[in-house]
This record gives sequence, C-alpha cells and structure tokens, in this order.
Amino acid sequence: MQAEIITIGDEILIGQIVDTNSAFIGKALNSIGVSVYQITSIQDDKQHILKALAEAEANADIIIVTGGLGPTKDDITKHTICDYFNDTLVRDASVTENIKRLWRDYVKKPIQQVNLDQAFIPSKAKVLMNLVGSAPGMWIEKDNKVFVSMPGVPFEMKALMQEQVLPKLKIKYKRPFIMHKTLLTYGMGESMIAAKIEDWEDNLPKHIKLAYLPNLGKVRLRLSGKGFDEQLLNTEIENQIKIVLPLIEDVFTGFEDDGDLEVLIARELTRLNKTLSLAESCTGGKLTQTFTQHPGASSYFKGGTVTYATQTKTDILNVLESIINDYSVVSAEVAEAMAIQCRKLYKSDYAISTTGNAGPDKGDADAEIGTVYIAIASENHVFSQKFELGNNRTRVIIKAVNKALELFKKEIFKN
Amino acid sequence: MQAEIITIGDEILIGQIVDTNSAFIGKALNSIGVSVYQITSIQDDKQHILKALAEAEANADIIIVTGGLGPTKDDITKHTICDYFNDTLVRDASVTENIKRLWRDYVKKPIQQVNLDQAFIPSKAKVLMNLVGSAPGMWIEKDNKVFVSMPGVPFEMKALMQEQVLPKLKIKYKRPFIMHKTLLTYGMGESMIAAKIEDWEDNLPKHIKLAYLPNLGKVRLRLSGKGFDEQLLNTEIENQIKIVLPLIEDVFTGFEDDGDLEVLIARELTRLNKTLSLAESCTGGKLTQTFTQHPGASSYFKGGTVTYATQTKTDILNVLESIINDYSVVSAEVAEAMAIQCRKLYKSDYAISTTGNAGPDKGDADAEIGTVYIAIASENHVFSQKFELGNNRTRVIIKAVNKALELFKKEIFKN
Repeated sequence: MQAEIITIGDEILIGQIVDTNSAFIGKALNSIGVSVYQITSIQDDKQHILKALAEAEANADIIIVTGGLGPTKDDITKHTICDYFNDTLVRDASVTENIKRLWRDYVKKPIQQVNLDQAFIPSKAKVLMNLVGSAPGMWIEKDNKVFVSMPGVPFEMKALMQEQVLPKLKIKYKRPFIMHKTLLTYGMGESMIAAKIEDWEDNLPKHIKLAYLPNLGKVRLRLSGKGFDEQLLNTEIENQIKIVLPLIEDVFTGFEDDGDLEVLIARELTRLNKTLSLAESCTGGKLTQTFTQHPGASSYFKGGTVTYATQTKTDILNVLESIINDYSVVSAEVAEAMAIQCRKLYKSDYAISTTGNAGPDKGDADAEIGTVYIAIASENHVFSQKFELGNNRTRVIIKAVNKALELFKKEIFKN
Repeated sequence: MQAEIITIGDEILIGQIVDTNSAFIGKALNSIGVSVYQITSIQDDKQHILKALAEAEANADIIIVTGGLGPTKDDITKHTICDYFNDTLVRDASVTENIKRLWRDYVKKPIQQVNLDQAFIPSKAKVLMNLVGSAPGMWIEKDNKVFVSMPGVPFEMKALMQEQVLPKLKIKYKRPFIMHKTLLTYGMGESMIAAKIEDWEDNLPKHIKLAYLPNLGKVRLRLSGKGFDEQLLNTEIENQIKIVLPLIEDVFTGFEDDGDLEVLIARELTRLNKTLSLAESCTGGKLTQTFTQHPGASSYFKGGTVTYATQTKTDILNVLESIINDYSVVSAEVAEAMAIQCRKLYKSDYAISTTGNAGPDKGDADAEIGTVYIAIASENHVFSQKFELGNNRTRVIIKAVNKALELFKKEIFKN
C-alpha cells in the first residue's frame, strides 16, 4: 500500500513558502499503515500536473494532491484533474449550500460569482465537504486506485485529511501496521553512537529499520517497523529497544512520542499544582510563546516579562542597578536576580530567566555574541548556567530556549 | 535553464521532519535566474534514488540532491550516485584534512573510521568543501548538465549553496533574470481582491504572472517575471504595480521585500526615535517574539510583559481591579488600561496590548472564544478595537498578532 503526495504551487518551487502539508499528510498516512513512496512538488502548470498525475498513478495506489483549488485564475488544479479523467465539471448542490453558509456566517460580505463557482466539481468525483473553506475536497476512484484533491491551506487540508480521507482509506484498503519509535539522545555525535551500537544494528531483523537524525548536539534514533500483526510488531520493537538502551544509557533522554519538552514540563507542573513565570531578555518572548502556544497554559503559567532594554530590568523587575553595573547585564548575577525578582513579582513557584547576547551586534552588553545565562529560581534556591551558543541570531535564540527547557525539566523532575 | 531538487530521507516521507531545504534552494536558484521545475522527496532506497536521478536528468539541466551523506549505514546517497555514474570511490586528501581539522578543533573526541571514510568520493566528482561538517559536497558534470550532492543538515547545505554552488552555476550558465515582487494586503479576501483587479490581471503581459497567496486575513499578491533584459523586466513590473496599486490602496500595506509589517514598523520607529512596549495576554508572547526575532530590536523595543493570569494584570501592570470586575478581563476597558499602564511602566512612547480568549476553554473570561481586544496607547491618546477571530487557538493567536501589527502600523504611519 503506497501513496504519492503531489503538492502544487509556484510559491513552493520559488521558495516563497515551505511545504508543511506533505509532512502532515505523510505522518497521517503512516498512522494508518500507508507508506509514502514519493513527495512531488510542482508548478501551477497544466502539462506538468498531468505528467505528475500519470507518474504517480504508475507508482502508487493512493495519490494525494494539495493546492491550486482557490477561486482565482492562477488556480488550475480542478480543471486539470477534470481533464486527466476526461470528465466534465458539474455544480454540486451541497457544496453550493456550504459556500453560502460560510459567506452568511463568517465572511459576511457579498458573495462573488468566483466563489459560487467553486461548487463545480468533476462528475466522477465524490465531494469531501470542506466545512472551513470554500474549496471542496474531491475523491476519485479509478482501477482500485484513489485520487484525492484537497486545498493547500493547511488547516482546511488537515480537517479534510483527519475527518474524511483517513476514515475512507481505512475502509477501502486492508493495511499493515507501521510503527515508529524514536529515541532521543543528547551530547554525543552520530558516528560515536553508531560505533557503540554497531553489533545490535547489524543484527536487526529485516523489517525493522534504524535511522540516525542528528541536529545541533542532539541525535534522534528512529526504529521503524512494518507488519500485519500489530501486537507482534510492537513486541519486536520493544525487545530491540530493551537491547539497545543499555548501550546508550549515558546519552538517552527519552522517547520522542512523549512530546516536546515544554509539554512534559506543563504536564508535570499541572500535576504538582505548581506555577511558573518567565523573565526573558535575549530570547525575546520566544520561551514564553513556546509554553503559551499549547492549550491549558493558564493552569500553571502566571506570565512573563520581556525586559529587553537594560533599564527595564531595573524598572520592571527591580533588579538592583548596582548588580548590573558591577557584573554587566549579561552575567550569572543578573540572570539570577531576574529569576528571583520575577518569581516574586508574578507570585509563582518557579521562575526562569534568560540574559545574553543573540547578536548580530554587541548591544548594551560586553558579552560575546552567543553568550547566554539561564537562571532558575524556586522557593529556596536559585542557580544559573552559562552557555556559548554560536553567532547566528535565530539559532542562538532557539538553542537558548531548548537549553532553558532542558535545565528546567531536570530541576522539576529531579525529586 | 531548469533545475530539479531531490531531497532524500525516510524522515521526510514519514513526516518526522519538514523539508525546509527545498525552499531555501528554490529561492537561491531563482535569485540567479534558474527556475525550479520540480522538487522530489524520496526514501533512502537505492533503486528509487537511481530512478529519481534518471528522471531529473531527463527534465532538468541542474540536479540538486540533498541528504543521505552521513557516516552511518542508513546513508546511501554517495554510493548510489557513484553507481549512477558507473564510477568508483577514491579518497580525497583535502577532505581528509578537513575532517581531521574539524575533529581537532571542534569535536575534540577520538575520530572514528566511518568519519575518515567520508573523504571517499566518486572519482568524477569535484569536491565542494564543507567547512562546517564532515560530509563533502560533490559537483559532477555530464553532457552539459550538473549534478550537485550536498548534506541534508540545513546550515551545512546553506553554506555550500551560497559559497560554492551558486558562484559555480553563475560561471557555467548564461541565465535570464527572474524577478518576484510581492504586494502585501491585509483585511480583504482573495476573491474580493480578484474582483477588484480583474481587468488589470487579464491584461498582464504573458511573461508576467500573478499569484494569490492567502493566509489568515492577509493576502500576498506575487508578480513574477522572467527575461534576459533585467532593466526592461524591472520597468515592466514597476509599471504594472503603478496600475494595480490604486485599485487596492485601501488594503495594501507594503511590499514583501521591504519586509514583514513588524520590520516596516521597526524601521519607522527607529527613524522617528520612538520606543515601543507590549502588554500581552491572549497572544502569550507571540507579538513580542515577532518583533524581537529581528536584529536591531533593541533600538526601539523597551520590553513586553505577558500577563497571562488575570491577577498579574493588577500585580504587574497595575490595572485597577475595579476595571476588571466592572468590565471583565476581556474588554475594551481592560485592553486600554493595559496599554496605558504598560506605556508608563516601560517608559515607552507607544504601547500595544492584547486581551482575549484564544481557547480552547473559556478560562477566566466571560468572552466567547476568539474574541480579542487590541489597544494602542501613545502620549495623548489610547484606543482599542474588538475582533472575532474564530475558534482555533493557533489561528486566533496569529490573527491577533497580525491585527495588532496592522492597527499599529496605521497609527504610526498616519501622520
């Protein structure tokens, strides 16, 4: 059971946007036992779309197409799919109703003819009703193969994929189970890890594959297996993990499926009924936003303050000016004072602070670009750690956020 | 002059990572006049890589391959490329030196044989020296076509692309100019815009294309042109913009190349020597982070406070409890009080505040999910506006940030 994903849109090929739809669809298909053979991104060009559809039909059982379904002239996917199947477009009454409903309840502006015309679909297609947008999804079967066309707007595509495409695929095809289990490691290079686990890797059964995913001092080891007996496959993978874990126990930190670090932290704080506040300087709100992007943050998160200008560290957080003058604004002392004051100000159980220089200029600080101090304050304790995180602004900010999460996780899980 | 990008790695197809390399490469190639015909993402599978290479060779002049060059057993790209060209691997002395240098200066751990073996490359390949990683880039020519293979680690690939691949391509091929100019609009749907500019769009010359890129209350209109006379092409696109601008002047906010809204705002504040502070509730630090992600924020940005818990709005911002009790925490009055107090606290010229309910639960507020108030305070003036932004948490937050930027831009550019 193989699928091909075709994403259509000039904006992808000129690099104006990153195609995130394919990863979502790939993951979703894997979750129901469908492997993705290939992802193909192509221009809004009729001949190219026809060629890609024909190639995909030759390679795969399921062809998932996104993009090019908008109401404007640059969107040609629907007409091209119609040509591919030698079909004609017919107006679908249920889609017309849906579009009218969307305009009445949400858009609240006069409806355009081009939007009403989005209700035209190939006569051979079944409608996948798009409740959150005017472009309908389409499902066309041919010789036991399935072609699905969805809009490229990510949240419309996601809703269609989850609520309609996956359930229909599950009914139509008998599928194996695909299982991925990813081990997270910190602090050792992939070749060192490979050397440590070489014998184990060489003896893996054929239907279980190992992949190394290195990224900024962190290596993910992914075991992937496929089989029709879910229980057996699960046992096999668990058994392999039992063998490999002792070999890497000094660098192993957890499994990827357990969620991102901030989610683990949020869960633990909520369980402990403890609260958190944040005082950010160089991370500029990124740490706060990392926590608040997830629902339920209000149960443990009191708030955060971004004291970007040096003066605001004294004005808002009441960090003593003498500490800043004596030690400089990028220092362990200032980081710790920020965390202590933040905790008091927000009346939280814990506070995390960051101060550093993300670059590209030196700013108010004497510190080298990439130098970051992170401090954590709790009821009876404050401590800080210094990091050198390179000289690329975006990477310094992200690494500092990751380090803060890593430090704080150790702090709250240590008991 | 057409290119195809092939990204190799099971992690892409199972959706474990989003392929960001392709967008970067696409943009880089466009900047030197090379169009991308197709992006193909495939598994770490020998037969599939060989097939993709052959197809790309048939379609394109330049084939750019990333991924699969690591030292571990799951990385098979190099051997497969060697097979594709009926070539043999030979050890390259300069790459060996580079690997030894990296281990001596950065890794500082014993070097592994698998890493030294990364110095083996196909005899027909020219080395593209990777100064920041152990896997070398490779450049192979065949019948006036170029094959480039680079590691998939984004910062290694980016360095190779910018410092070696682009300069070499510029020398090898005569290329046209590709020009993109993107107009940003806020506050009107794509079909409404399309209706307004229909006549203009229908009369665009054939070598200039228009694309609509809608995203959460913001529509980007991209004009793309291609030609060998850069001056002429530029004049043609500028002339088309002169015609279309008056048609959309009520929603036009600037050009994408000028930067996002927050970049325009940052530039204007810096020019005016004015400062900004932020008081965020429902946007949870996202607005602050939107400003601070760009270098130079310290010249105008004083800081921000995220008063997530209701109590912190009185504790930190000194919003009167009576206002919160009388009007509820999600209200115009509270938004305005937050902005006024924030401006005082941070001693800034302007302050922007947000209060609302991003969902999924109602939280402390009576307000419906998706209701957001945004206020702006300046020296003698405060005002607020109410928005209904739907019921998807992530989207509510992003839309609120966009609305805040839109409101604030109007405020500071109105004079």
